[in-house]
Amino acid sequence: MTQTKRRASELVREQISSLLAAWGMDADIVRITAEVMVETDLAGVDSHGVSMLMDYEDFRQRGKLNVKARPQIVMETPVAGRVDAGAGLGHPAAVMGMELAIKKAREMGVGVVTVFNSHHFGAAGYYARLASSAGFVGMVTSCTRSIAMVPTRAAVPVLGTNPIAFAAPAKRNAPFLLDMATTSVANNKLKVYDLNGKTLPAGWVLDGKGEPVREPKQAMEIVRSGGKSGGGQTPLGGTAEMSSHKGYGLAMMGHILGGTLSGGSFSPIRNRTQKTSDPDRLGHFFLAIDPKVFRPEGAFEADLDDAIDVLHATAPIDPALPVLVPGDPERASRADRLKNGIPLPDTLLEKIRAICVRSGVPYLL
Amino acid sequence: MTQTKRRASELVREQISSLLAAWGMDADIVRITAEVMVETDLAGVDSHGVSMLMDYEDFRQRGKLNVKARPQIVMETPVAGRVDAGAGLGHPAAVMGMELAIKKAREMGVGVVTVFNSHHFGAAGYYARLASSAGFVGMVTSCTRSIAMVPTRAAVPVLGTNPIAFAAPAKRNAPFLLDMATTSVANNKLKVYDLNGKTLPAGWVLDGKGEPVREPKQAMEIVRSGGKSGGGQTPLGGTAEMSSHKGYGLAMMGHILGGTLSGGSFSPIRNRTQKTSDPDRLGHFFLAIDPKVFRPEGAFEADLDDAIDVLHATAPIDPALPVLVPGDPERASRADRLKNGIPLPDTLLEKIRAICVRSGVPYLL
Repeated sequence: MTQTKRRASELVREQISSLLAAWGMDADIVRITAEVMVETDLAGVDSHGVSMLMDYEDFRQRGKLNVKARPQIVMETPVAGRVDAGAGLGHPAAVMGMELAIKKAREMGVGVVTVFNSHHFGAAGYYARLASSAGFVGMVTSCTRSIAMVPTRAAVPVLGTNPIAFAAPAKRNAPFLLDMATTSVANNKLKVYDLNGKTLPAGWVLDGKGEPVREPKQAMEIVRSGGKSGGGQTPLGGTAEMSSHKGYGLAMMGHILGGTLSGGSFSPIRNRTQKTSDPDRLGHFFLAIDPKVFRPEGAFEADLDDAIDVLHATAPIDPALPVLVPGDPERASRADRLKNGIPLPDTLLEKIRAICVRSGVPYLL
Repeated sequence: MTQTKRRASELVREQISSLLAAWGMDADIVRITAEVMVETDLAGVDSHGVSMLMDYEDFRQRGKLNVKARPQIVMETPVAGRVDAGAGLGHPAAVMGMELAIKKAREMGVGVVTVFNSHHFGAAGYYARLASSAGFVGMVTSCTRSIAMVPTRAAVPVLGTNPIAFAAPAKRNAPFLLDMATTSVANNKLKVYDLNGKTLPAGWVLDGKGEPVREPKQAMEIVRSGGKSGGGQTPLGGTAEMSSHKGYGLAMMGHILGGTLSGGSFSPIRNRTQKTSDPDRLGHFFLAIDPKVFRPEGAFEADLDDAIDVLHATAPIDPALPVLVPGDPERASRADRLKNGIPLPDTLLEKIRAICVRSGVPYLL
């Protein structure tokens, strides 16, 4: 059984920063990337924060990640923009993208920015939250590197776990924040079941014949193979009977906005035309809307507060499990982890230690 | 067993038009509303087309529907707009809303328009398609009249079936069109199971204790009661284990854009503060984006074509059931129904006949 240690978020930030700096990234790029990664771990999205360091090291070693990249605005209109991520990590380009969308929304009411030539950008919710923190409605989607999702009726995976994030500001209440993969569950949840040898619920992963896979090792093999053996993760909905075509459609919506509109790659096409040393050429989508354009000042926030209050006050099935509003779990996690530290499994800590050795920086965790 | 008759779409259009005109609507409002309703039936969305006439008659009789309403643009900026539906049916206001968003997108690259003081507007997909037909990416959401969806963990329903529609233009292929309720299944599907006395799949409807309801009569009673007895329709995902919190979150996203941003009502609050003769005060959201702002002319459409081709070519589990792309079922339905007529159950035809008698117009179907 894997042990888990709690480590202060500032220590995790320092470790990430020292590694990224050792790889050659500029100080400001390091600062932004580490900030997004640590906030992602604080929010409880363990799959998209510090645990991504192994992938990022792999990208760098294969020569597909440009550690010297500085994101640049390459097109701008009063309401739109394009950011070239320069084949660097997605985080600084995505922050620039959403900040530009917010700037446009502040000036014109609406801003739409796409990012291209990017890599993995962590959790989409972080960028949606940038908008709500500034008083704007924010929406984020992305295309993906991995192939994981089996479309409804398909024997093999084609799409990724394409995320959709959406945030909106309230006043009395914390902002609304939806941050979701369009698969039924995140990869990380499968890993946790595998780690604990726990049987999967039917409908998370299918085999090449469309049958549910409940044995966690077999499920992980299917997911790791990226479709070579057939089967993969289900779209939200799980089965055709439960309307998995909607989760599949939402994944494509995420790809069309994040990928097609930005000029990002579509994984099945990229994988057969590019070398493994080529950049992932991911794209992201950022939308910001100023509620004050549509409502008198404060009216949007007041109405959202009223709706959130209704949701929180809704009678639960089990009084011990009250009805949550999207964003509540992330905030609860953040409060806990800021106080008690970020939980890091020994297996992850050992991998980070090895990266530190290879990168010639002190191991801090 | 209910019999179904096929009726030519032009006849259905004539019947709808004659009824709306008899109720006092202006000719141009009648034309637009009938067009949206007939196209909705042609697309196979039986729950949102001509079968809504009974509800619309009820709205009118209760005095909540303003048949003399003419939608009006009441606020405009270079990229944004607001349309007052005047307590009329949502269709003409929604067409005006999306057409205004398209006009803004044509001029500025992006357009966002909200509609307020509206009623039911039919199928959201119709309006998203207006954008893709004009060469734009389109997104539509709406707040809802009915309360149907039980949030994850809740014993009673709070949200509606808040729709999300998204369309994008291709070139070789027909446009991508996602048009979905954020519940696991549409109300209409439950009605069909009830009509045929068929056992429901577990996870479409829950009772007040969170247990699946599989007996169709009991399920329909729960849904019709609007939560008074507890229980309701599940959010996309179905169960907490299958991530129904995502479907619930998407429903709220639909409400926040369609309702909170527009100044529309939130059903649980409206229902305890308004008289049944008051308008529903629904709101809708329309977004249009010009791909040419972000990509060289034709590049977006070409990339989307390539992605759609990959999806269509994906190996299916059953060769007799090829992988579909969102929009395919609607187009297949349209081709069939244009040729063979719109299938209308006898039970529905009898109800329409009764409306014709009450409205003093000839019954044509």
